[in-house]
Amino acid sequence: MPKESVTPVRVAILGCGNVGAALVELLSDPARSGETADRSGIRIEIVGIAVNDLKRDRSSAPWFPSGLMTENAQKLVSDDSVDMVVELIGGVEPAKELIESALKLGKPVVSANKELLAQHGVELSALAEANGVDLNFEAAVAGAIPVIRTLRESLAGESITRVMGIVNGTTNFILSKMSDEGSEYADVLAEAMARGLAERDPTADVEGFDAAAKAAILAGLAFGCEIPLERVSREGISKVRSVDIAFARQFGYAIKLLAIAEKVGPKEISVRVHPAMVPLDHPLAQVGGSYNAVFIEGAAAGPLMLYGQGAGGMPTASAVLGDVIEAARNLVNKTAAPAAVRSLDREAVRIDDLRSAFYISLDVLDQPGVLAKVAKIYGDHNISIRSMEQVGLDDEARLIFLTHEATERDMAATIQELERSDVVDSVGGILRVVTSEESNGS
Amino acid sequence: MPKESVTPVRVAILGCGNVGAALVELLSDPARSGETADRSGIRIEIVGIAVNDLKRDRSSAPWFPSGLMTENAQKLVSDDSVDMVVELIGGVEPAKELIESALKLGKPVVSANKELLAQHGVELSALAEANGVDLNFEAAVAGAIPVIRTLRESLAGESITRVMGIVNGTTNFILSKMSDEGSEYADVLAEAMARGLAERDPTADVEGFDAAAKAAILAGLAFGCEIPLERVSREGISKVRSVDIAFARQFGYAIKLLAIAEKVGPKEISVRVHPAMVPLDHPLAQVGGSYNAVFIEGAAAGPLMLYGQGAGGMPTASAVLGDVIEAARNLVNKTAAPAAVRSLDREAVRIDDLRSAFYISLDVLDQPGVLAKVAKIYGDHNISIRSMEQVGLDDEARLIFLTHEATERDMAATIQELERSDVVDSVGGILRVVTSEESNGS
Repeated sequence: MPKESVTPVRVAILGCGNVGAALVELLSDPARSGETADRSGIRIEIVGIAVNDLKRDRSSAPWFPSGLMTENAQKLVSDDSVDMVVELIGGVEPAKELIESALKLGKPVVSANKELLAQHGVELSALAEANGVDLNFEAAVAGAIPVIRTLRESLAGESITRVMGIVNGTTNFILSKMSDEGSEYADVLAEAMARGLAERDPTADVEGFDAAAKAAILAGLAFGCEIPLERVSREGISKVRSVDIAFARQFGYAIKLLAIAEKVGPKEISVRVHPAMVPLDHPLAQVGGSYNAVFIEGAAAGPLMLYGQGAGGMPTASAVLGDVIEAARNLVNKTAAPAAVRSLDREAVRIDDLRSAFYISLDVLDQPGVLAKVAKIYGDHNISIRSMEQVGLDDEARLIFLTHEATERDMAATIQELERSDVVDSVGGILRVVTSEESNGS
Repeated sequence: MPKESVTPVRVAILGCGNVGAALVELLSDPARSGETADRSGIRIEIVGIAVNDLKRDRSSAPWFPSGLMTENAQKLVSDDSVDMVVELIGGVEPAKELIESALKLGKPVVSANKELLAQHGVELSALAEANGVDLNFEAAVAGAIPVIRTLRESLAGESITRVMGIVNGTTNFILSKMSDEGSEYADVLAEAMARGLAERDPTADVEGFDAAAKAAILAGLAFGCEIPLERVSREGISKVRSVDIAFARQFGYAIKLLAIAEKVGPKEISVRVHPAMVPLDHPLAQVGGSYNAVFIEGAAAGPLMLYGQGAGGMPTASAVLGDVIEAARNLVNKTAAPAAVRSLDREAVRIDDLRSAFYISLDVLDQPGVLAKVAKIYGDHNISIRSMEQVGLDDEARLIFLTHEATERDMAATIQELERSDVVDSVGGILRVVTSEESNGS
């Protein structure tokens, strides 16, 4: 019979940055913590907070438990007074070593660490299961959005066909602003950096590394397999031009950076990150600003979308708190959830064989016969054109093509030949088009 | 230590309509059931299906387990070969008695029964907890959308401020079509009935009874209290006119039937169903056709929206299957989730004290001085006007007002006096306006 925790569950928090400080506030500020205990029936007590540098300024709020701070994370994890460990350090080491220590001591772990979970999720999940404790990581993907729990629990029996996510707030902010204002990538990025909405080195966001780690985690949960990060195809948003966004809109599409995990064969899945043209009536097209959303397609459930704040101290701490309460309930009842990622016999396929429709923008000489030459190149590679628009540009012309579905391999060969052609001045934007059997029905 | 079920978990299904038949397909069709077992690590075996009438035609699919059918639901529930009961009968009795029998025998129950859970959710949850087994009911609200699990688990520690849902597909279909085509309510309803998208007696849907039951369930989960159905204020969509939809759009709003559970004081909550004007840039405004969505606002999480198919055999069966797998995992590990609804000291307030902005459409005599008389009535009741539009109508005029926030009580008194006024021909549409601190950021 399940019991409520009469004695509190004692938690160690490793890392006290934005998310850690917000979690401490949720658990220590009397204005907030009462609601948590009331609603959950679980009492959580912080017994230690490990930080890198004790001398750094922390919250001066009266409820802040400054006396619990330590610089020795390993000692805290091993301390007998600690029932559960919350890892908010980020990066692979020392986070991995600390988590392994905790799990081996039979202490459940909650982590928000996308790099670590993307690279060692299966191994750590197996270690948690072997030790009969939980490893929860809702906050590692899309902040407050309950996508991990939905994939692990609600859809535990679902045959999932595709997961597509807007999982990086910085790039969605940049693309939304480029779309709203017609401004160029470099200008919007500079503004985002000035306003603190992008990192000083924005590479991880704008080149899709952050989204790729999240794509690997989502694929592992949706399809039961470990996807090495190097098998995740990755293309960022730095080549997206405002002119492409304007043409896409004219054709009825928004451009979004998507993390996609898709079943493409009985045991084959594709995991990739790239900017994509999303039909304007698709729910993902309407996710603006720095918001995140994950769109899941299941054979029985149909389409589902989960939307919310994908970053920020409080939203992320909220997801961590949900995980802490679940792990605490299981700890009190001496049980644990099954391993998050099951190792099924699945293979991440290379992107070459994938089929999608494409948007291609070409700057060509403004001469008779140019279109015939370009069309022949498409035809030679079995690329069928769905529509074409021509725009004049001084002594050049711009041709915008939307193709029918073609393989990545055929398209790459086509682009190579177009680049070599004497009538093509330059190949501009190349974008994949998302096709959906389901729209939002409106 | 959690174990995988080597021996299958044996399930009895009560009711074999749309949802029951879809669940049997998910569990019995070899093309589908393999994926379920692979992903979940749990084997589910159907050991009995209780129906009202054995002679009715059922599926002729080769996998359909016709030999497991029985007309004796009570005997099936009590049978020693049954580990878990799935109730898909609907309505209060005999569903309640059967569920109580199962729980008392220590058998977890999964139910999709909104009427029963709305009226007896706290009692049945307590009975499940007392017997140490699960009572799961994800499918009772919004079909495949994982809103119950999100409220019970992900947001178990969250201070929730408001839940607003589009939880009835029929009314959302009607309102979306009225909006898209400018057609009138009665015509669209007739078409929906002809196409099988509305029941032959559509009262439960169009007058908001279905949404009210779901609002009560959502309120119970979000705020930890039982809301008697009679404390849920309820207004349907039958008075919504296409002209109001057109004016709302002109002001920047869509009209949606919302089920709302809102914290309005330290221990006071408001639970209500009514058509509402939703800002066009709010994610709920973009939920079209028969889709459902639930928008949750939390103090730490910020806004979250969950979107998907709220009805239909397969989407609903998908939610049931997620619940079955969770209950099976807990059964194997001899544990159970805590009661879904905690009985906290909360009170559902009457709608009179609530504040919101209003849309009011008045047909008035087209004479000088009319506006002054109307404005005086608003002023006398402390209603402040935010904007007004006048439209000519032969020898009448139509005045469209948007007010600032006012109480329901003041607005009711205002409407009464307007109806008595000699310059007012008729009071047309009256709609509440949803205000949001958060929009979708675009």
